[in-house]
Amino acid sequence: MPDIRVVLVGPKFEGNIGAVARSMANFDFEELYLVDPCEIGDDAYRRAKHGSDILDGAVTVGTMDEAVEDCFLVAGTSGIITKGDRNYTRMPVPVREFAQHVSGYREKIAIVFGREDTGLFQEELNKCDLLITVPTSERCPVLNLSHAATLVMYELFQFETVTRRPEPAERKEKEYMFNFFDELMDSIDYPEHRRSDTSVMFRRMMGRSIPTKYEYNTIMGIFGDASKIIKNGKKWE
Amino acid sequence: MPDIRVVLVGPKFEGNIGAVARSMANFDFEELYLVDPCEIGDDAYRRAKHGSDILDGAVTVGTMDEAVEDCFLVAGTSGIITKGDRNYTRMPVPVREFAQHVSGYREKIAIVFGREDTGLFQEELNKCDLLITVPTSERCPVLNLSHAATLVMYELFQFETVTRRPEPAERKEKEYMFNFFDELMDSIDYPEHRRSDTSVMFRRMMGRSIPTKYEYNTIMGIFGDASKIIKNGKKWE
Repeated sequence: MPDIRVVLVGPKFEGNIGAVARSMANFDFEELYLVDPCEIGDDAYRRAKHGSDILDGAVTVGTMDEAVEDCFLVAGTSGIITKGDRNYTRMPVPVREFAQHVSGYREKIAIVFGREDTGLFQEELNKCDLLITVPTSERCPVLNLSHAATLVMYELFQFETVTRRPEPAERKEKEYMFNFFDELMDSIDYPEHRRSDTSVMFRRMMGRSIPTKYEYNTIMGIFGDASKIIKNGKKWE
Repeated sequence: MPDIRVVLVGPKFEGNIGAVARSMANFDFEELYLVDPCEIGDDAYRRAKHGSDILDGAVTVGTMDEAVEDCFLVAGTSGIITKGDRNYTRMPVPVREFAQHVSGYREKIAIVFGREDTGLFQEELNKCDLLITVPTSERCPVLNLSHAATLVMYELFQFETVTRRPEPAERKEKEYMFNFFDELMDSIDYPEHRRSDTSVMFRRMMGRSIPTKYEYNTIMGIFGDASKIIKNGKKWE
């Protein structure tokens, strides 16, 4: 089972924080990060029950970046399922598939939940390696925060014992590779206005595929060589 | 999908009733029966959100018998998993297995949830056709009432619908893209003896990520442009 960190971004109701802590205890999770949360008082502890030590140990930070910087994979949650294929930044993986997908890893994975009303902002979503969603009614898709978190933890808990996967690339290595991809776009004069979207698209593809160290290095080498040759070539023209 | 009736026996906190109503709306359930419940007021409606009409339509009765008498199957819920085979009255089926099991039926099935503190009494459990349970931590097995109900409804809902995916690329399109990747390797004079392995590696990465038509087209465009520029550049040297 991966080492899971639950991250709540901007929670507004302490009762929800407490309810999430309780469910964390129900599914053997321990690490809770709170980004710019509301104040935590009696109501949170009343709802947390046997999860009160998780509340006590919760780490409070100011930004989502601080909450996920040492994580191998950052999974954002989104209640909105995009129908069109073009808005890939909002294209989530069903939570069961995600749980199955990451079950063999031991690395730290952050599961990031947004605000009760507005969810995660676009810039926060863009920082996620992938998005996950809980399939719900089309008429009433928006789950209560603690219910959404409970469903995600439940699914992760179901796949506790599974075979180990080959060593995945580290976050730093992935960032290198994303840079190489950006450089490749640069070298072919890829339209400026599409670069940032295409960059996020590539990040999402890699987030779903979770490449190994070997795969990352290989792809990085090819992208790097291609853009180097193009840039040098251009210089000589 | 079966015709599901959610039955709450002796709920003590109106907030929980409201939260259950909200989750029912999230998973397209409509029929709520309350057996000897606490009073329902503002807190229940505040938590119910878009499930307020379910609260309005809830049927209140005095005993569990009245709540389930016209049901084809009565499934009780229990947080306590009995290890020994002898206490068969407490031997529950994991909720996922239950959901799969009943997915083909159209008859009315009652899912009965007990009190927040003492659950269902033995005589109530004895009236159930079967018991279902949500697998949880052994240390902290007891879920909040609305969380337990949400997990059960989520599992029942999964067999009803499959999340709509964005249109994936067709086999033919993928083959095109793999060709472009091969050409890119060719254009950068990638070592001959590694090409076939790297080609398979790339195919595997894409196989795990299952890109959409849009993603394929975008990536293909970038690879295509890069190798074209490199090859033309070389011709001019």
